[in-house]
Amino acid sequence: MLKKLYLIGIGPGDPKYLTLEAKSLIEKLNLFLIPEKKGKKEELTKKRIEILEVVKGGKTYQCIYLPFPERKRGINYREKVKEWRKEKAEILREALLHIQEEEVGFLIWGDPTLYDGHLDILHEIAEEMKLSFEVIPGLSSFQVLGAKMKVSLTDLATPLTLHTPRSLRNAKEIKHPVVVFLDNYETFSLFKDQPLKIYWGAYVGGKEEIFKSGTLKDISEEIKNLRKELKKNKGYLMEIYLLKPER
Amino acid sequence: MLKKLYLIGIGPGDPKYLTLEAKSLIEKLNLFLIPEKKGKKEELTKKRIEILEVVKGGKTYQCIYLPFPERKRGINYREKVKEWRKEKAEILREALLHIQEEEVGFLIWGDPTLYDGHLDILHEIAEEMKLSFEVIPGLSSFQVLGAKMKVSLTDLATPLTLHTPRSLRNAKEIKHPVVVFLDNYETFSLFKDQPLKIYWGAYVGGKEEIFKSGTLKDISEEIKNLRKELKKNKGYLMEIYLLKPER
Ligand SMILES: C[S@@+](CC[C@H](N)C(=O)[O-])C[C@H]1O[C@@H](n2cnc3c(N)ncnc32)[C@H](O)[C@@H]1O
Ligand SMILES: C[S@@+](CC[C@H](N)C(=O)[O-])C[C@H]1O[C@@H](n2cnc3c(N)ncnc32)[C@H](O)[C@@H]1O
Repeated sequence: MLKKLYLIGIGPGDPKYLTLEAKSLIEKLNLFLIPEKKGKKEELTKKRIEILEVVKGGKTYQCIYLPFPERKRGINYREKVKEWRKEKAEILREALLHIQEEEVGFLIWGDPTLYDGHLDILHEIAEEMKLSFEVIPGLSSFQVLGAKMKVSLTDLATPLTLHTPRSLRNAKEIKHPVVVFLDNYETFSLFKDQPLKIYWGAYVGGKEEIFKSGTLKDISEEIKNLRKELKKNKGYLMEIYLLKPER
Repeated sequence: MLKKLYLIGIGPGDPKYLTLEAKSLIEKLNLFLIPEKKGKKEELTKKRIEILEVVKGGKTYQCIYLPFPERKRGINYREKVKEWRKEKAEILREALLHIQEEEVGFLIWGDPTLYDGHLDILHEIAEEMKLSFEVIPGLSSFQVLGAKMKVSLTDLATPLTLHTPRSLRNAKEIKHPVVVFLDNYETFSLFKDQPLKIYWGAYVGGKEEIFKSGTLKDISEEIKNLRKELKKNKGYLMEIYLLKPER
């Protein structure tokens, strides 16, 4: 019977971003949960399998694919996300009930504590099922962005805010560095008349990773065009960016 | 002659938080720069050496200890930090000039892009010296805090702000999650009449790590007392905390 689940942060794609802790856990476990992405995003499922292959070498292991639905778009964002999480919880619960092994690993993209709903879902389920679990931290995409672009994410004695487009839109003036996750709306362009630098990256940590940086005003259009092109060519876009006041 | 420097994020102390990338770089390099902490904080130098020992096994390597001064306290914070950085830059420049090897690794606590001045210092020096460098991202202390306490750092569609006490003090009301670095002033207690939860950790990732969490109002005093005790017993305190609006 299942006793323990590990939420394992795997970093933003490249196996080299795994921590030693994540690696040895993956070596030890025999069974893994993997969200099954369909269509263009199938690649994201494949990347998780690639990580298992790299770590496991020739050793056998089993995977359970979780057929999570895509998030439904809708006017009431919070309601939609709540519904979506409920559906995911149902699928996860169902999968866990049928597990014979004592331990299972759940591979989470980036860091499980940043903009990822699985931890909250798990808190609910674990209580009901009397399941214990642990969270293994992983590098987040914004850290790899900063490292690759060789830019400090923080300035001296100023805050750094991680945003999603919904909260960024309400900011009038950007006076300290901000990082933006999950932006599908080119929200950066709302700020293009402010003295900001942008550091923008797509598919960070992957073979196709691409970066752009410069004064926001100057390269805002270039990034917009690049976004369209990438979306067309690859079918989906995974992007993250930093806005920093110019000094 | 020195050609390349790697700023290597090593995570918040425990070798298990190294990434595979950091590990293989450390395996490859023969020479390392290590800031030399004196007095009570000598332990932080030792932890870096412990990481080298774990990764290098029996293999030989060399270290250059950088005798960085302690930051001077003073009224004009920004000025003091600038002076301090200048002194550090001077010491680093001097050390780099005498290196015969082609490559050197500089071990940075946590993530080099978060509240760490070495990257900015290096940008200056590297230009003068025509030195190339790379930044290797590392897990930051706040991520390990979140993972160990099994708490999502972000709430749905809300921002997460990383603060230092100087910027937190100016916040009147805390309406979304905040993480606080470098707080020596118990700044959390300014907010104890707001409906907040605190997740507090000290020496995170070390053998002596200790965590406290609860409603801020209820455990604010307990944390204050614990802080005093830890400071007395260990001589220094490394702490990080998350404040989250109660739902
Ligand atoms: C649901 S959030 C999960 C974040 C993840 N937990 C982390 O720590 O990176 C997904 C968002 O993270 C960002 N992201 C994750 N991986 C990325 C990558 N490899 N390249 C660029 N952005 C990435 C994008 O903004 C994407 O919309
Ligand atoms: C100069 S900042 C460097 C932060 C580092 N670059 C990082 O990513 O964690 C030092 C502050 O980081 C936090 N910190 C670093 N390591 C820590 C640990 N192991 N436990 C608790 N706090 C830590 C503390 O708030 C400390 O005052």
